[in-house]
Amino acid sequence: MDLHSLADRLSGRASKYDVSGDFPEEDFDDLREAGLMGLMVPHRLGGAGATFAEYTDVAMRLGSGAGATALVFNMHASVTGALAHTPDELVRQFGAPESFFASRDRVLAAAAKGALYAVAMSERGIGSRLSQVRTSYERTGSGFRITGAKTFVSGAGHADAYLVAARDSSAAEPRVSYFLVPAGPGVEVQPAWDSLGMRATASHDLRLDVEVDEDALVGGIEGAALLLAQVMPQWLVASYAAVYVGVAQAVLRHGVEHLRERGLHTLPLVRARLGRADSQVAAAELVVRRAARQVTDDPGSQETNRWVWRAKLIAGDTAADVAFSVLEAAGASATRRGHPLERLYRDARCGALQPATSDVCADWLGACALGDDPDEVARW
Amino acid sequence: MDLHSLADRLSGRASKYDVSGDFPEEDFDDLREAGLMGLMVPHRLGGAGATFAEYTDVAMRLGSGAGATALVFNMHASVTGALAHTPDELVRQFGAPESFFASRDRVLAAAAKGALYAVAMSERGIGSRLSQVRTSYERTGSGFRITGAKTFVSGAGHADAYLVAARDSSAAEPRVSYFLVPAGPGVEVQPAWDSLGMRATASHDLRLDVEVDEDALVGGIEGAALLLAQVMPQWLVASYAAVYVGVAQAVLRHGVEHLRERGLHTLPLVRARLGRADSQVAAAELVVRRAARQVTDDPGSQETNRWVWRAKLIAGDTAADVAFSVLEAAGASATRRGHPLERLYRDARCGALQPATSDVCADWLGACALGDDPDEVARW
Amino acid sequence: MDLHSLADRLSGRASKYDVSGDFPEEDFDDLREAGLMGLMVPHRLGGAGATFAEYTDVAMRLGSGAGATALVFNMHASVTGALAHTPDELVRQFGAPESFFASRDRVLAAAAKGALYAVAMSERGIGSRLSQVRTSYERTGSGFRITGAKTFVSGAGHADAYLVAARDSSAAEPRVSYFLVPAGPGVEVQPAWDSLGMRATASHDLRLDVEVDEDALVGGIEGAALLLAQVMPQWLVASYAAVYVGVAQAVLRHGVEHLRERGLHTLPLVRARLGRADSQVAAAELVVRRAARQVTDDPGSQETNRWVWRAKLIAGDTAADVAFSVLEAAGASATRRGHPLERLYRDARCGALQPATSDVCADWLGACALGDDPDEVARW
Amino acid sequence: MDLHSLADRLSGRASKYDVSGDFPEEDFDDLREAGLMGLMVPHRLGGAGATFAEYTDVAMRLGSGAGATALVFNMHASVTGALAHTPDELVRQFGAPESFFASRDRVLAAAAKGALYAVAMSERGIGSRLSQVRTSYERTGSGFRITGAKTFVSGAGHADAYLVAARDSSAAEPRVSYFLVPAGPGVEVQPAWDSLGMRATASHDLRLDVEVDEDALVGGIEGAALLLAQVMPQWLVASYAAVYVGVAQAVLRHGVEHLRERGLHTLPLVRARLGRADSQVAAAELVVRRAARQVTDDPGSQETNRWVWRAKLIAGDTAADVAFSVLEAAGASATRRGHPLERLYRDARCGALQPATSDVCADWLGACALGDDPDEVARW
Repeated sequence: MDLHSLADRLSGRASKYDVSGDFPEEDFDDLREAGLMGLMVPHRLGGAGATFAEYTDVAMRLGSGAGATALVFNMHASVTGALAHTPDELVRQFGAPESFFASRDRVLAAAAKGALYAVAMSERGIGSRLSQVRTSYERTGSGFRITGAKTFVSGAGHADAYLVAARDSSAAEPRVSYFLVPAGPGVEVQPAWDSLGMRATASHDLRLDVEVDEDALVGGIEGAALLLAQVMPQWLVASYAAVYVGVAQAVLRHGVEHLRERGLHTLPLVRARLGRADSQVAAAELVVRRAARQVTDDPGSQETNRWVWRAKLIAGDTAADVAFSVLEAAGASATRRGHPLERLYRDARCGALQPATSDVCADWLGACALGDDPDEVARW
Repeated sequence: MDLHSLADRLSGRASKYDVSGDFPEEDFDDLREAGLMGLMVPHRLGGAGATFAEYTDVAMRLGSGAGATALVFNMHASVTGALAHTPDELVRQFGAPESFFASRDRVLAAAAKGALYAVAMSERGIGSRLSQVRTSYERTGSGFRITGAKTFVSGAGHADAYLVAARDSSAAEPRVSYFLVPAGPGVEVQPAWDSLGMRATASHDLRLDVEVDEDALVGGIEGAALLLAQVMPQWLVASYAAVYVGVAQAVLRHGVEHLRERGLHTLPLVRARLGRADSQVAAAELVVRRAARQVTDDPGSQETNRWVWRAKLIAGDTAADVAFSVLEAAGASATRRGHPLERLYRDARCGALQPATSDVCADWLGACALGDDPDEVARW
Repeated sequence: MDLHSLADRLSGRASKYDVSGDFPEEDFDDLREAGLMGLMVPHRLGGAGATFAEYTDVAMRLGSGAGATALVFNMHASVTGALAHTPDELVRQFGAPESFFASRDRVLAAAAKGALYAVAMSERGIGSRLSQVRTSYERTGSGFRITGAKTFVSGAGHADAYLVAARDSSAAEPRVSYFLVPAGPGVEVQPAWDSLGMRATASHDLRLDVEVDEDALVGGIEGAALLLAQVMPQWLVASYAAVYVGVAQAVLRHGVEHLRERGLHTLPLVRARLGRADSQVAAAELVVRRAARQVTDDPGSQETNRWVWRAKLIAGDTAADVAFSVLEAAGASATRRGHPLERLYRDARCGALQPATSDVCADWLGACALGDDPDEVARW
Repeated sequence: MDLHSLADRLSGRASKYDVSGDFPEEDFDDLREAGLMGLMVPHRLGGAGATFAEYTDVAMRLGSGAGATALVFNMHASVTGALAHTPDELVRQFGAPESFFASRDRVLAAAAKGALYAVAMSERGIGSRLSQVRTSYERTGSGFRITGAKTFVSGAGHADAYLVAARDSSAAEPRVSYFLVPAGPGVEVQPAWDSLGMRATASHDLRLDVEVDEDALVGGIEGAALLLAQVMPQWLVASYAAVYVGVAQAVLRHGVEHLRERGLHTLPLVRARLGRADSQVAAAELVVRRAARQVTDDPGSQETNRWVWRAKLIAGDTAADVAFSVLEAAGASATRRGHPLERLYRDARCGALQPATSDVCADWLGACALGDDPDEVARW
């Protein structure tokens, strides 16, 4: 199935999952069948070996079908992409044991076969600031015991494993590590997700009280979490962006369909709204694709990071603005629940509010533009 | 119960009714108890004898408690207000029989005792353009038989009678009359309302196949509908406006509460968002109150009508803008269903889309400002 | 001459003075003839005894004729209005000697006869923050010697006297007093004003090295400057606001004239721009008039001050927004120098940038809305 | 001299030419020396053989130095670029005589040696709509006699020849041809340019009463004007766009410099303004470069034309928005004439108003997005 048909199928189910708030099982069946769970996995492990730019294209298309599904997929791609794209030398340099590479490959090969990974980073009251994580871990004889609670875990209850950020309970200084914790006993999903938009992400809470093996420690090294945030901000900030450009494209598509059906497409004010929306969406797509190319070609540079933040800011704001204006052009009949524009209006509002929020991006970009040295780490 | 306490009670239930989409029975029990069903009814018939300006104040306060409840009340106030405020001489001049006054007084006295009236004007595909109404009536021996279908009837299934616009099936020229049709057999509610915002208005469809007495004809004269639209645009356009200023005030109130709880109130970008929102809401309130005073002092004049359209435009746009910006200040935690800002974000979007839409108001006001003679009637 | 005709005369000359940057002598001849120099002066001293609300009306109308002239007049009205409106008891309470009242009356009576007063408060690098004034004074045998430099002195070279803020050179703590310094030797105008907009205000620099009599000390008391800023923020912040509403009204008027002349008034996008501009200007006028009524009825209260800041914010932003949009509707032919819209576009941009700037107002209003206690004094 | 240094030199003189309104002679000396007059001229004729994408890069950089200079250069590049890029086969197909190619090469070779060409298309009251051109031509024994008046001729009085659109006075149907008319007797410049912004373009009026040789007829074929507008909209619409992105970049650069000098760069609201401006400018640059690449790779296609209109819309709006916001961040001290931000604020406003205006672009793009077939020709 090509991406275009796949997006169509997602689009056809988006309203149903939005209304029920259920996890989009059928969408993930399709994603598995299309081989997308292994998108970021290297060829040698059975995957498609995609670059960040290729991922961005996929995320945009999925997002134009069903935003919530694309956001869950984005989390999976972030886990597999970060694992696949971190160079071996770098990991060795940071002290990873050789055993790490085998366990990493197992994780990636499982994804290529259909395993779904989720991210459990945020906690209530601290958002996604890694430096303040309260979930903790301690060494046991054979591995680690992890205890705590997470929130906003997209795909909770449907993932095969969760990337969990936790702090070393024995360290005086904050030392935050990542673990890939398999679903199962000790990992309890607590229904909490009932949201304005992006309702089908199943971003429930997770309660953790679980023992994991030694090789669940990602990278095989403790304290790697903040490091990763600095090296690969794209996976924490920019990978959403493509999804929201897809959402904005869906607004245009459904707006055009509705306006033609109702015979409103010849009204000059309607036409002007659509024309401006078309330009904004085209511009946002270019910015997101540019950021993706930067990440692929020159990961981690200051210039790349600026593009990443621009992409997040512009994609989130554009989706919200375009949905606002096109809904106004479409009129009250498009506000009925079940109408695609009604759902998209709610979905589109969420981008600017997801971390890093548009206001945070603007602040950071302003500091850069003004020649100041934004202290990135402080933001995590 | 004073208006402040009443609004508080409505506010406390708004989330519940938003989630269920049920009609806010308890709110209307409170409104009845507070004597508000007779707000527009003259003192001599047991009512409060309010002016349009006094109504505006009530609508704003109710709207700041629960927008949907205030919209349903607005429809009731429009029916009773239009009946109460149309001068006797004018009605006589248009040919009303003397019997009209007794039947009008019965209708108003019933309201003062708690009867609820609703408006059944819109039809699918034509919106609220009276000139294109398809619901029709024909004379019977003792009155009229009305046949047709209506949509967006706020309070459907809970009103004691419906103000129905229908065209004379025997006339070649369109002749549209108003009837006050009692609830009962032949007036069938068809559940259809499931909307982005203002979910508790129960604005369902109505199927009509019903016979009514002679005195159900409003004014006792056929063909009065378009006339009324011209003489009293305030009840068709501006009475919403106060509700949306109330909604915008609620956004500020809940925004402040949320931001202080979360400790976000000292962030400069948050403060600037709130400061601008505060100014916008204060300005919108002044415009709506000014329009209301104009209606009270100089009903029907061109200057009054301009203020009425400005009020509709500014109230609708302000509510939507302020909800958009304050939600962004509040962040993702305020997008959980059940959070007042989540509901208000959806409710606030509806004002600009209700007729006359903001784009229509802007067009009309532009024509006036440019010295053209806007053909009001054509818009109905 | 009534205000309407007067505004017309100002409007007819506005382009000439904008191009040359000269002080509008003819306008002030007309203002003198119309008795407006004594607008704020009590009846017993030969003036019109206007309230702040009446002043606001005059300022708006003058501003709709010629913004720059209205700004210079605003400075004169601020000096005479503050002197006339400060209650005698309050001045006595702060320690004013009885001799003060005679000297104050002389100053006001001179205004009623045509004297023009200007304000010399700002200094380069500190703006209008009184607490950081560097211009200083020292006691001499018969009065004071004042030394320093001022900037942005509207009407410089054309005023009969200047209200100068200066700090006591002998005090350790900052003690800032006001002096009314007559034009003449020791008060040297240095041409410096050549600005984007409001070009005819002659807001040049002033170099001061001058001795003044004892009774030049305003209030007869030292250290009164900060006090006044707190008691009467309206004269420092809100009195501009009315001028910018006038400017916005002029944009509408000249926009309509231009669009009709060019036959562009029937274009739907043009009409929508004008309709939205009309609403914004109507709203801004209401806010400014409301603030003025508050000042008249309840000067100095927190509620009044909030309205004053809202008025400043909304008037400045509205003028700029409306000029931006109407110029776009008017097209390139309206950008020729000498075209009223070209001038108004530049004039209108200045309001939000004059102290307190829109961003400062938004910050202060946000703090109030969020329940914080804005420290007003710190801003001066 | 590299482009960076060249832009710096232009930037250094921009204020001087803005104040005087004189044609920037020194800038064109520099452009000649840098070989830019032959930028679009093929290598075989002594030029640089640039593509449209390469031109776009040059225009953006020149625009970031001095907008007015870049606009004049843009006209020259449009003439030489359209001549150089129209394929020989196409011209032959339209009936061009073989003699055309020699005369075209002479024109291009002269540009490579420093000749400057200007465009005389607009006429008072009809703008740039070719179909309504009133300037006419008639055949003489040896060529043509051209009579009429043109307006907005950038570079008037400084160009070596003017591309003039004129209609065949003998034809019943409008038949509009282009002539390249040498400066000299019969071509009279009438000073008329005194504008809000872009003051140094010398866009004066031109009065024509002149005989030209046979080979002044561009393409050697009559009636080619509308054709060219359809085949190459980029030169009529999009080549401005790059200039305004340059202007927006200059706003950022000078804004940053001013804000750091004044110590305002740490204020959160200032930082947020700069951050949003940075994103907008980056997005506009991508859109303009994308449109340029489309023109280079796939000239004349519907998809290319959409990008061309998006580029015009976004570049014009972005320049104006960014200048508006950054001036507000910079404050009143940046509104002094001679300050780069004061000039840029005026320059930046002109882009959206130049044809095709932003409103026209939005309308056309809306029609495309809504699946209608925009009748391009009708717009000329």
